[in-house]
Order: sequence, then C-alpha cells, then structure tokens
Amino acid sequence: MLLLSMYLIAIVAEAMTAALSAGRRQMDWVGVCLLGCITALGGGSLRDVLIGHYPLTWVAHPEYLAVTALAALFTIAIADLMRRLRLIFLMLDGLGLVVFTVIGCNVAREMGHPASVAIIAGMITGCAGGVMRDILCNDVPLLFRKELYASVSIATGALYMGGLHLGFGAQAVTLVSLGFGFAFRGLAILYNWHMPRFIYSREPE
Amino acid sequence: MLLLSMYLIAIVAEAMTAALSAGRRQMDWVGVCLLGCITALGGGSLRDVLIGHYPLTWVAHPEYLAVTALAALFTIAIADLMRRLRLIFLMLDGLGLVVFTVIGCNVAREMGHPASVAIIAGMITGCAGGVMRDILCNDVPLLFRKELYASVSIATGALYMGGLHLGFGAQAVTLVSLGFGFAFRGLAILYNWHMPRFIYSREPE
Amino acid sequence: MLLLSMYLIAIVAEAMTAALSAGRRQMDWVGVCLLGCITALGGGSLRDVLIGHYPLTWVAHPEYLAVTALAALFTIAIADLMRRLRLIFLMLDGLGLVVFTVIGCNVAREMGHPASVAIIAGMITGCAGGVMRDILCNDVPLLFRKELYASVSIATGALYMGGLHLGFGAQAVTLVSLGFGFAFRGLAILYNWHMPRFIYSREPE
Repeated sequence: MLLLSMYLIAIVAEAMTAALSAGRRQMDWVGVCLLGCITALGGGSLRDVLIGHYPLTWVAHPEYLAVTALAALFTIAIADLMRRLRLIFLMLDGLGLVVFTVIGCNVAREMGHPASVAIIAGMITGCAGGVMRDILCNDVPLLFRKELYASVSIATGALYMGGLHLGFGAQAVTLVSLGFGFAFRGLAILYNWHMPRFIYSREPE
Repeated sequence: MLLLSMYLIAIVAEAMTAALSAGRRQMDWVGVCLLGCITALGGGSLRDVLIGHYPLTWVAHPEYLAVTALAALFTIAIADLMRRLRLIFLMLDGLGLVVFTVIGCNVAREMGHPASVAIIAGMITGCAGGVMRDILCNDVPLLFRKELYASVSIATGALYMGGLHLGFGAQAVTLVSLGFGFAFRGLAILYNWHMPRFIYSREPE
Repeated sequence: MLLLSMYLIAIVAEAMTAALSAGRRQMDWVGVCLLGCITALGGGSLRDVLIGHYPLTWVAHPEYLAVTALAALFTIAIADLMRRLRLIFLMLDGLGLVVFTVIGCNVAREMGHPASVAIIAGMITGCAGGVMRDILCNDVPLLFRKELYASVSIATGALYMGGLHLGFGAQAVTLVSLGFGFAFRGLAILYNWHMPRFIYSREPE
C-alpha cells in the first residue's frame, strides 16, 4: 500500500535528521540510535498512549525500531554527504509530516473518535516526535517557536477529515490532503512564511 | 455543578499564565496555543495515562481544547492588561491547583484505588501541567525548586481523602478541602513560605 | 524472592543518587522527593504505559513511593557521607540497571511480546528513569552522551531472553544475566569504555 511505503520513507527520513541533531550534541552511537527511534516513532507512540490504542506501532512491528536505528547509524557514515542533501531531507521531512498526520487521523477515526480529536491525533503523530527530539537535545522545541509545522499538520488533518466527512473516496482524499500539506509546507519554507510571535517581557516596556 | 464551573475557570487561568510563559520565550501563536493546552490539560492527561483512565478528558470533551487554545490566544491581545492583573491570576492559579487536585483524587477514587494513590493522582493532576510547561520552556521545573505548590496539593488531597474516609458528606469535604488548600497556598505566597532546600556540591566544601 | 529484594535495593539506590542530582540543582525537599520517586519508578512506569501493562507498579504498591521518597529525604541527612560512598553507589546503580532490565524483560515476556520487544522493554525499565531525571534537571541526558549504560542494558536483556529461548532454567538465566550485566557495567566504568561519538557541525570543517 502506498501509505505504508511513504510511512517507511518518512520514519527513515525522521531518524536521519534526528541523527544529525544528535551529532550536533556530540552524542555517542547509542544515543544517535535512541534519538532516531524516539524522533521517528515517538509521535505515534504518544498518540497511541493518549487515545489508548494498543499495541503501539513499534510493539506490533519491532522491525520498525531496527529500520530507524539502522537509518540513524547509517547517517553517521554519510554525514558529509548529508550537507549536500539538505534540500532532499527538508522535502522528506515535509513528506513525513503529512504522512504521519494522515495516518494519525486515521487511527483515531477508526477508533470512533470525532473529527476534532482525529485532527489533534494527526497533529500529535506529525509533530510530537520532533518535540521529544528537541527536549532530549535540551532545546526549546522548534515547533513552538517558528515555522509553519503544526499549522501545516492541522490544516492537512482538517482537509482530510473534511473530505471524508463530505463523502469523497478515501484514496482521493488521502492523495489530495498529502499533496496539499506537502505543497503548503514547501511554500512555507520557500517563502519563509511565519506565524506572528508573541513577545512578552515581565517588565512593562 | 460547582466543581465543573471551577474546573473551566481553572483551565482558562492555567492556559493564560502558560501563554505569558510562551511570550517570554517569544513563541509564535501556534506555540502559545499548544503550550496553553498542554499546561491546562497535561496534568489530567498524565494522571489518566498513568492510572489507565480512558478516554482522557480532552478526548471526551474536545471543546476544552478549544477553550484553552482561545484563552491562550486571547492572552496575546490583553498582555499589557495582564501585568496589572497579576494578583488575580495568582489567585486563579491557586484555585486551579486545588480544583485539579480534588478532581484528580476523585477520578482515582472512583476507579477503586486506595487513598495513597488517589492523593498522588490529585498531585499529578494539579502539578504536572506546570512541569510540562517548564520543560517545554527549557527551565528546571519551578515545582522542584521553590514555593509550596506540590505540598499544598498533597495536603489538600490528604484532607479530602481523609474527610471522605471519616464519613463526612462529599460536598462539605470538597468545599472544606478547596477552602483549606486555597488559603494555604495564599498564605504561602503572602508570607513567602518555603520548603528548605537541599544544596549539594560535588566537591566537599 | 531474590529479585524483589534486589529491586528494593535498586529503587532505594536510584532515589538516593537522584537526590544528589536534585541537591546540585538546589531543589527544595519536595523536589528532592519527587525527583527520587520519578527516577526510581519512572522507567518502569514508562514501560507499563507503552506496553499497556496496568496497573503500574507504584499504583499496585504505593508503599514503593514511600520507600523512594524516604530514601531521597534520608540522602539529605547523609549527604556528606555520600561523597565517601561514591564507589558503593556506582555499584548499586549498576545493580539497579541490570535488575530493572531483567524485570522489564519479564513483564513484556509474560504479556506475550516477542523477544525484541522484551529487550526494548528491559532497556526502557533500566534507563528511562535516569533520562527523566536529566530532563527535569535540564541536562542533555547522560544516557545519550556517554558511558556504556543503554548498551549494558540491551546486552543483559539479550542474554536473558536468549538463555530462556534456549530452554535453560529461569533462575540460572536470571543469575547469569545479572552477573554478566553487572560485570560488564563495572568493567566499562573501571576501564573507561566508551561508544564512539558522532560529531557533526552544521558547517563543513
């Protein structure tokens, strides 16, 4: 199935970008593998725990842990090459975001949750892994500070759930949502779109 | 019901104070909403996941997500006013702490857990949201460093569970516990009560 | 049972070393207790939540919370003595790592999970408490940066699951795995064994 192949590409891409974050923090090889697995599979795990969807993906398919750990290790070998592949990885990361989102919406929907919960489940699936990566690297999560990332995920999820609600075919809705989200994310990067920031200092200016 | 109205006031207050924390870190509007939701609803979510109480509050009532997200966004508009309302927000935060605590005790109690687990469940409900906020803002959690906050929560929970155990009416016990906890927290702020600190340095002094 | 006594020693040792971390961050007494409980019981809690094993250990046995909180408080009293007991605590921490690992493998195994999931469950039980401690202290987790810690846990879990798979007696396999893991960890500290690091900077050197 198309979604499964894209899911596998996405977890590999997420694991590889997480490995670069680990390298910036000079983590050891075990840390690189762990951070890769947590970043790639952590969003889906958090979603499953929050909506009580057992077993978790990597418990049912432990081979995904092996795939992400190997992808993270492989990144160490090709780190120099990665610098020149930055654009491809930005694209794969965007693909991962929208694929994770649609999969997350689906899991919640099949459990009978309403659309609002499904959209949140999609956003958690798409975004929480990166938040865990940033917390483990001791950064303020990028998600909270800049870039249209959570917004892209919410818009993709809303389009997907809306399309299904209106009775369009599941396959068409999936493809359109993925395409829309991917383009939205790409344009946001290309034109440097940002949400406005809220700047508050304790003392009156 | 009284507890529900107070719960709604509490999640709004928690979301608004979290929004100010987000503003101090210059997060964007999406980050402000996310931090507001996580701070207001994260403590209850962690409690539910730890004791296996499904569905979570915001899954059963997604409208609470909308309430907290809107409260967080609204805070951006009235940020200047918030500086003058500091005292009111300290009071609402104290109200939130004791209301969350009593609700958390109740959830665990109705699942048949013993009093000790119920008191811990109450403390997690009251305190964990703020810990998540501090972790996401990349601070050492305030809870661990100063102020009688967890202590107020534990004392409130112990009074509540003790009162029920002694056979007093649920409504009276609830009101007395809330009043006691709120007064305890207020006095702790007013008189700057602190727990002693444990200061340890690796080298002998 | 031997494993239970070792488990109790291990949670006490983990709580005490966590209390020292809390002291280095000048946390107050409540923070010391909370950090002790979270470090000692957090790994098992995360494992239980991830594989859906309810009730959690400390929910079924709230007395363990009291044990760890008291151990953390007691550490404040004997902090000066702790400096001279550093070697003993390194050993107790190593014991805790392997005991937690074997217990974690067992929990997953008894739920019918395959060996790969059991080994991961063992590693989470052994290592996640320390990661939570480091996150709450606002450090990049030690686990990701240095020392053979996760590696020892994985090797111990693999030996344990492999031994059971080959049909050896449970007690013999347990003792051999614990002995092997403990020796491995001890030798890693003694000879300063490290995993290689992955060092990556954004700019080409």
